Amino acid sequence: MISLIPVTGIGEVAPGDVIADLVAASPVTLVDGDVVVVTQKIVSKAEGRLVDLDPDDLAARQVLVESESRRVLRRRGDLIISETRHGFVCANAGVDLSNVERGKAALLPLDADRSARRIRDGLRARLGAEVGVIVSDTFGRAWRKGLTDVAIGCAGVAAIVDLRGTTDGQGRELQVTEIAVADEIASAAELVMGKAGGVPVAVVRGVDPAWLRESSIRDEVVRPPAEDLFR
Amino acid sequence: MISLIPVTGIGEVAPGDVIADLVAASPVTLVDGDVVVVTQKIVSKAEGRLVDLDPDDLAARQVLVESESRRVLRRRGDLIISETRHGFVCANAGVDLSNVERGKAALLPLDADRSARRIRDGLRARLGAEVGVIVSDTFGRAWRKGLTDVAIGCAGVAAIVDLRGTTDGQGRELQVTEIAVADEIASAAELVMGKAGGVPVAVVRGVDPAWLRESSIRDEVVRPPAEDLFR
Repeated sequence: MISLIPVTGIGEVAPGDVIADLVAASPVTLVDGDVVVVTQKIVSKAEGRLVDLDPDDLAARQVLVESESRRVLRRRGDLIISETRHGFVCANAGVDLSNVERGKAALLPLDADRSARRIRDGLRARLGAEVGVIVSDTFGRAWRKGLTDVAIGCAGVAAIVDLRGTTDGQGRELQVTEIAVADEIASAAELVMGKAGGVPVAVVRGVDPAWLRESSIRDEVVRPPAEDLFR
Repeated sequence: MISLIPVTGIGEVAPGDVIADLVAASPVTLVDGDVVVVTQKIVSKAEGRLVDLDPDDLAARQVLVESESRRVLRRRGDLIISETRHGFVCANAGVDLSNVERGKAALLPLDADRSARRIRDGLRARLGAEVGVIVSDTFGRAWRKGLTDVAIGCAGVAAIVDLRGTTDGQGRELQVTEIAVADEIASAAELVMGKAGGVPVAVVRGVDPAWLRESSIRDEVVRPPAEDLFR
């Protein structure tokens, strides 16, 4: 069984705050093997990834989105789908005005795998617990309506679990079996966060211990443009 | 808190089996508000959606995939990305040879929303429990490596939760807030299923009661080609 536990009481996060301190001080007692999922929003705030932006100035917003993009894939109305410098394909390059002080916009962390490692190291130092950490964000999909949370950074938990070479229930080798468990864990955590509820951290307890290894979203999940059929 | 509970002991499923009977006979006692996630594979088997296919005959496989497709979007090697008759964009039109008897292939259910409703009605009749049901399948993504489970059918649980009009922690209206909770629930359930482990059903316990309503993946999640920027 796996438990999805919302971490309440984190409060507002400001530049310079240390996420590991906030999580360590929360009512949830972490144990070895937990995966701590932290939303990009509070990571970006803690890391000072905030810029001034008049929310009514659509032209300025567009310039900002383009400056955060490696290339723009599609435009429709105010919506820009682009590839960020990290290689993520998402709306508006992750520039986000919700749950941010009016007149500010939050940008994606420069390196969310590194953000996750920093939180993981901080939790180990403070609590002695060996946990995985995922930084999550909310992305759309090409062919399905609605948004889901995905992992934009991870540490100490597998981005992908490769089941190739294992056999199915019939003893035959499985065909397509690279499961994006970090993305699935991020989606699971979102179920107890609630976009409006202000729960920016959740603990996923009880994952397969074999998934707890060093990993990276950038190296394992971001699909290189050369392999991509839809860019 | 939400619990993800694997439902063990389902065993092999054959055409004519009634999924609700198998779940009702399992060791997990369902309670009102549970969401039961059932993999497409056993739904397809129970519904007799099996056809003969020599696994080594790549030409025959290609013909089958094309016959299950409304249109082919991309090809690379043996891989075909197509739009199924249901409107799903996925690899090989959902035609699947893993965990199926050798010489057979499983096709997607004709109407997985209806499959979910049938399971839901069956569980209500047998157990008196008001549950949501999701039929899940494993799809790739355009710009991210690895696969995640998504919902291809649902009943009694929201495909999309629309938070537009609610406010964020700053009292401002949220911008982009249609959350594909059925897909997130399907991904969460996959974490306790394991592709090779043969656990084709999981119970997700503790979701927001507001999500328990009539819904449909076809109507709420499938993005019409006219709205699509990447087809």
